[in-house]
Amino acid sequence: MSLIVQKYGGTSMGSPERIREVARRVERFVKEGHQLVVVPSAMSGETNRLLALAREVNPDASAREIDVIASTGDQVSIGLLSIALQKLGVKARSYTGYQVPIRTDNAYSKARILAIEEGNIRRDLAAGHVVVVAGFQGVDEGGSITTLGRGGSDTTGVALAAALKADECQIYTDVDGVYTADPRIVPEARRLDTVTFEEMLELASLGSKVLQIRSVEFAGKYKVKVRVLSSFTDVHSTDMGTLITFEEDENMEQAIISGIAFNRDEAKITVLGVPDRPGIAFAILGPIADANIDVDMIIQNASTEGMTDFSFTVHRNEYQRAMQILESRVKPEIKARGIVGDDRIAKVSLVGIGMRTHAGIASKMFGCLAAEGINIQMISTSEIKTSVVVDEKYMELAVRVLHKAFELDKAPDQEKMRP
Amino acid sequence: MSLIVQKYGGTSMGSPERIREVARRVERFVKEGHQLVVVPSAMSGETNRLLALAREVNPDASAREIDVIASTGDQVSIGLLSIALQKLGVKARSYTGYQVPIRTDNAYSKARILAIEEGNIRRDLAAGHVVVVAGFQGVDEGGSITTLGRGGSDTTGVALAAALKADECQIYTDVDGVYTADPRIVPEARRLDTVTFEEMLELASLGSKVLQIRSVEFAGKYKVKVRVLSSFTDVHSTDMGTLITFEEDENMEQAIISGIAFNRDEAKITVLGVPDRPGIAFAILGPIADANIDVDMIIQNASTEGMTDFSFTVHRNEYQRAMQILESRVKPEIKARGIVGDDRIAKVSLVGIGMRTHAGIASKMFGCLAAEGINIQMISTSEIKTSVVVDEKYMELAVRVLHKAFELDKAPDQEKMRP
Repeated sequence: MSLIVQKYGGTSMGSPERIREVARRVERFVKEGHQLVVVPSAMSGETNRLLALAREVNPDASAREIDVIASTGDQVSIGLLSIALQKLGVKARSYTGYQVPIRTDNAYSKARILAIEEGNIRRDLAAGHVVVVAGFQGVDEGGSITTLGRGGSDTTGVALAAALKADECQIYTDVDGVYTADPRIVPEARRLDTVTFEEMLELASLGSKVLQIRSVEFAGKYKVKVRVLSSFTDVHSTDMGTLITFEEDENMEQAIISGIAFNRDEAKITVLGVPDRPGIAFAILGPIADANIDVDMIIQNASTEGMTDFSFTVHRNEYQRAMQILESRVKPEIKARGIVGDDRIAKVSLVGIGMRTHAGIASKMFGCLAAEGINIQMISTSEIKTSVVVDEKYMELAVRVLHKAFELDKAPDQEKMRP
Repeated sequence: MSLIVQKYGGTSMGSPERIREVARRVERFVKEGHQLVVVPSAMSGETNRLLALAREVNPDASAREIDVIASTGDQVSIGLLSIALQKLGVKARSYTGYQVPIRTDNAYSKARILAIEEGNIRRDLAAGHVVVVAGFQGVDEGGSITTLGRGGSDTTGVALAAALKADECQIYTDVDGVYTADPRIVPEARRLDTVTFEEMLELASLGSKVLQIRSVEFAGKYKVKVRVLSSFTDVHSTDMGTLITFEEDENMEQAIISGIAFNRDEAKITVLGVPDRPGIAFAILGPIADANIDVDMIIQNASTEGMTDFSFTVHRNEYQRAMQILESRVKPEIKARGIVGDDRIAKVSLVGIGMRTHAGIASKMFGCLAAEGINIQMISTSEIKTSVVVDEKYMELAVRVLHKAFELDKAPDQEKMRP
């Protein structure tokens, strides 16, 4: 008997018929003798509907109240899935975030999980119930409802698996695993049977929509075995999707590059002509961080005559707000020459654990893009990824060219057999 | 400075524009220097939409999970009203039932309020906030969400007013007060400036849809001053609606009859040929009560040869379930001759505090109905009301005939002036 946490995405919960299908899949695992904790997302479109309603009433609403509204979509889903399970004769009991409780900080709309008290869930599991927990939500110290931000149900699933020391966390979604690139853009993209935690972290943070980044961080921190599967296969399908692993398997030939991620959710901002002195990065990014705006890439050029340019990227939704803060508060303070920005950019990244030991990946990447006449606006690298920012209109082309150049359509063992 | 509890109905919260209108009305009272606790209902149609969704997934769902689902409509409303108030510069903070907390028993879907802890609300009021509390919901001892049944937001409003010892509880609805009869059926119906608590209790229990019965009971028990007003008048309207009073004003000429209520939500059940012995009523109604089915009228005829017929009415929605219980569990037990029922009935009632001291009201009522050829199936009387059950198709006719016969279109002082 295993303890399995299953998370189902919004499309999987999209209609009463789809919900019954989820219930049948859960029932299958119960009949196989497993204990189940299930995290269903809000029905597809529901959270957006609620947020649009809130925006219509007040575009500058307090985040605390937005969370009160937005959390109801997931609450409806736990009730619906529980009664769908009851209809199949499966004992089920629902929990909202505060009923578990799932304790978070009070950063409304993007809260972080601090602790999960598992007593209630363990008691119900021991009593033979399937426990259905609302994703995306928690409760802060003051008892207010919080939400974890978009895709937060993944994080709920993984965090529950960690707290309960579950044998596996299965993430059911509308794709059947992790691919070398988005198959809608690269038809030759290949599904990976396994991907390492570090690669998945980069793929998630770079815009691969399969898993929310925080859920991958959680999985890494607590060594949760996460499997990405499709909820659109037959209920009895034995397809295993993609497993996220923690150790590089030494017996396995490792591909240099696992996949290509891309992201057009970002905007680029450059602060021109700032004095190159200690504390300048903090003077620029401090007010941005205070406004709870996440910064992704940060680049500072070498200075000329004591002056430098400072660039960074933020989520496109926060571009206007970041620009305002810079113009009104940062620019006068540090006496910058100007602030320029562009929200029509895309980030394209090569990700692969094998990159660590293989030189020349970056230069090959830049060469491929140059050959297609694609200008690179920013570059950022880590041990296992190389990212470039390009004009948004070249994004698909860049992804396809790189997929072909790095032979991602071929499985690693085939590659190994080549002379 | 007064402390006012305001409750707004679903139609008043029907759209973002309507919600902004509610916020403007609340703002007016804040500007007049009052402290406000506001209970908005779910947006009109929302709770029905949620219940229909649940029924589609599982028509025999557990009531606990139904409440998890149904309570979300009111949760959305508290968030929306709070941000609408914030947009006007009014400080506002929302509370769900469990955040207050509003403690109830665990009779899911029809829970009763046991206690309201007022500390959080008092703290926010003292800090200058409008406190927006979700109606219709509470939390049981085990931390599960409960709902109070249809119209439960009225009860929440009155119970909050009682707990906070508010100066007034204002119930805003789509009618502008309590009428002598439903104006849709009797165009000559007249609005009452005041109605006694006892009359309101009868009117509410008899199907006048203005206020939920439990809210009136609460108001009576804790002497809460309740005023029924329209939310469709101008925000600055000085219309005072109908006030529910606790003492009969001795200086006021009291009308004999205050109003006529009607109700087609009931069904009639008769258990035929039961032995007339002690305990028989309990043997019949015990299993009905165990199934949490409310019984309204109960009539037992005089017995002939030790046998009698026993009739009662239940809500039409519970007719089938009640019939099943009687057929399967009660009939064999007490050896009744048969069970017959009719769910096409209506109850029509005359209500008036003056009835206590005026004989002949009932006989005048029966005479009027007989003159129109309307057969009376059941009769039930109390100190201040006389109810009859008639075939559903005669309901409107009966109401109109009685309204005219008892001259309810004329104000009491006019009546006094008659020779």
